[in-house]
Amino acid sequence: MQIPAPLQPSTRILLGPGPSDAHPAVLRAMVNPLMGHLDPEFVSIMVQVQEMLRGVLKTKNKVTLPISATGMAGMECCLVNLLEPGDKVVVCAMGFFGQRMIDVAGRTGAVVTTLQAPWGKTFSVDEISETVARVKPKVLGLVHAETSTGAMQANIQEIANICHLHGTLLVVDAVTSLGCIELDIDEWGVDAVYSCSQKGLGCPPGMSPISFSDRAVEVIKNRKTKVQSWYLDMTTVMSYWGQDRVYHHTAPISMIYAIHEGLRLVLEEGLENRWKRHWHNHQALKVGLEALNLHYTADASCQLPQLNAVRIPEGVDDLKGRKFLLERFGIEVGGGLGDFKGKVWRIGLMGYNSKPSVVLLALAALEQALANQGVKVNPGAAVGAANNYYAKA
Amino acid sequence: MQIPAPLQPSTRILLGPGPSDAHPAVLRAMVNPLMGHLDPEFVSIMVQVQEMLRGVLKTKNKVTLPISATGMAGMECCLVNLLEPGDKVVVCAMGFFGQRMIDVAGRTGAVVTTLQAPWGKTFSVDEISETVARVKPKVLGLVHAETSTGAMQANIQEIANICHLHGTLLVVDAVTSLGCIELDIDEWGVDAVYSCSQKGLGCPPGMSPISFSDRAVEVIKNRKTKVQSWYLDMTTVMSYWGQDRVYHHTAPISMIYAIHEGLRLVLEEGLENRWKRHWHNHQALKVGLEALNLHYTADASCQLPQLNAVRIPEGVDDLKGRKFLLERFGIEVGGGLGDFKGKVWRIGLMGYNSKPSVVLLALAALEQALANQGVKVNPGAAVGAANNYYAKA
Repeated sequence: MQIPAPLQPSTRILLGPGPSDAHPAVLRAMVNPLMGHLDPEFVSIMVQVQEMLRGVLKTKNKVTLPISATGMAGMECCLVNLLEPGDKVVVCAMGFFGQRMIDVAGRTGAVVTTLQAPWGKTFSVDEISETVARVKPKVLGLVHAETSTGAMQANIQEIANICHLHGTLLVVDAVTSLGCIELDIDEWGVDAVYSCSQKGLGCPPGMSPISFSDRAVEVIKNRKTKVQSWYLDMTTVMSYWGQDRVYHHTAPISMIYAIHEGLRLVLEEGLENRWKRHWHNHQALKVGLEALNLHYTADASCQLPQLNAVRIPEGVDDLKGRKFLLERFGIEVGGGLGDFKGKVWRIGLMGYNSKPSVVLLALAALEQALANQGVKVNPGAAVGAANNYYAKA
Repeated sequence: MQIPAPLQPSTRILLGPGPSDAHPAVLRAMVNPLMGHLDPEFVSIMVQVQEMLRGVLKTKNKVTLPISATGMAGMECCLVNLLEPGDKVVVCAMGFFGQRMIDVAGRTGAVVTTLQAPWGKTFSVDEISETVARVKPKVLGLVHAETSTGAMQANIQEIANICHLHGTLLVVDAVTSLGCIELDIDEWGVDAVYSCSQKGLGCPPGMSPISFSDRAVEVIKNRKTKVQSWYLDMTTVMSYWGQDRVYHHTAPISMIYAIHEGLRLVLEEGLENRWKRHWHNHQALKVGLEALNLHYTADASCQLPQLNAVRIPEGVDDLKGRKFLLERFGIEVGGGLGDFKGKVWRIGLMGYNSKPSVVLLALAALEQALANQGVKVNPGAAVGAANNYYAKA
């Protein structure tokens, strides 16, 4: 066979739903030579990663660690550890990832009750309260930041309180929220949470941070059946990441180096500063998108700052537009999933990429992409609006 | 909290059972900026990775790809996709990892029949033949290179023929063999194989190359139940890595860059050259270990070149010895697992680390480590014996 040449990937600006660009310092951290996964020095790196992850998740949960696989494995990990065949689970789906949780939960043999909200909307506390009181499930699954619609589920703390009133554990998908918007695991009372490395944390994809409350850990310890996944079985993964350091699997050393640096940078910036930064750059993008006549899919009241999903204007071709942005500017913007396929562009401003230079370039490039498909735009209006916002902010 | 400083990991020479040191070019490949997992350019990188992986596994299997998790997830992937509740499976265990396969297989709800060999031994074709004829299982699971004992199971092709006579699928654990010793998936008739990135391929841990024969893919397509793991469900993973490129999960971009470079380097060297290199460096190490009076745990007839497991001499403390090597020379050597805990050192010469400089240093350092614990050694004899071997080879 013809052996390919060494890679020289083109430079991109990743403004889709993730991965977003990794911070250069994170990429550099991965060039460090490997260590053994049981090396005392590596073990102390693991301890630091866990401590920093607790800081970023705002939790004291002992069982807080990055799973050695991508975010979707985090979803599976939370559900397969907490659910056993015959258990009752309620999944609240307001988009693609809530929908996926139904599939993952169903594979445990649990009885799944589904609560649906239209794409772009979120759930009221009353709806959830009524369902939890009626079903009394062991677990309620909820998406904090729905990546397919750009909508944020508010009132997680109230929902957690309702869950605990009925002995229900609250599982939260924070894949797109961690490192971008407020997330406060202990204060809110979340029992299990999973996220990813490649969005708000500014690392490459490949790890899934998770955390289980003591209440959830008790449930796992008292299971009647073995966890169906050996790889994601927390009863043994905990021993590797806990005091015992019992060999389970070989940790992805370079990815641990990466997330160590990613978490460090989040804490150096400070969580509140980071949330504010995401908010301001979103506001600037938003006034620019409005100047381009691009309308959000999510209700204004629940719009995520880090993921801006807008309807593609009448007469504009989805693929042609995204191809134009990619080939002309190296800019990746996300297409729609499921109900939104071909109808929506998803513009992510996450982690390292949430910054004014990216906002201005994105708006300028979008203006050109729309004009290229015959949309009448007011030249410079989008960038002008954003600059106007920054001047006042 | 106190924010840790950026990492500056100590330099190691990884001579345990894995990870082994990654090739510097592989580490450099990971510094490339990220791309989106659905970017057309990234898709062509995925295609190259699959083609090269087929080359390294010597297979034409369409379903050949790296799973987005470490080697143990590869084991789980093969078993959960091929087995359904009530199916019959025979697992041949001749060490720690065969034993683990029993656990993983059992979690599918399949009926597991176990064939055991003493640690350090392997199976005769007759033993396996008798069991397959009697049980007529859907799947037979076998470890090619048992990392806990350093023993190689020979006659895989004969075993595959017997399996196919009875309609049984052969699953092979090639975690420690890929890239180090002969492995010929199509010629041998293996139906499912899994490996890892961090041993013979000289990459960081984090990916698990797998391959399924067309026969195995048919079985997966005709399942009556959903695969219990969503993350490892090949019916959907195949669509992402196949023609359709349907989004499943976010691929670990940097790790794909790494394995692209790792596979490239294997093919540039040539498989036969690579196997010969592993063999020669093993022979040199072996004469040196013999000069140090260190004895192999595996029978000479089935000794793996890439993993040299030797008994720790009477009166020598395991931990003290390994600590001495690590602190004085940065050399990591593996301890024993299971039956061999505290009794065995495992010296890996894998991928990038299978080279004369490493062999000579390892022997010189071992001499010092043994002398440090009062073992009488003939100074320089081990290195002398190895140099003597190299001079003649």
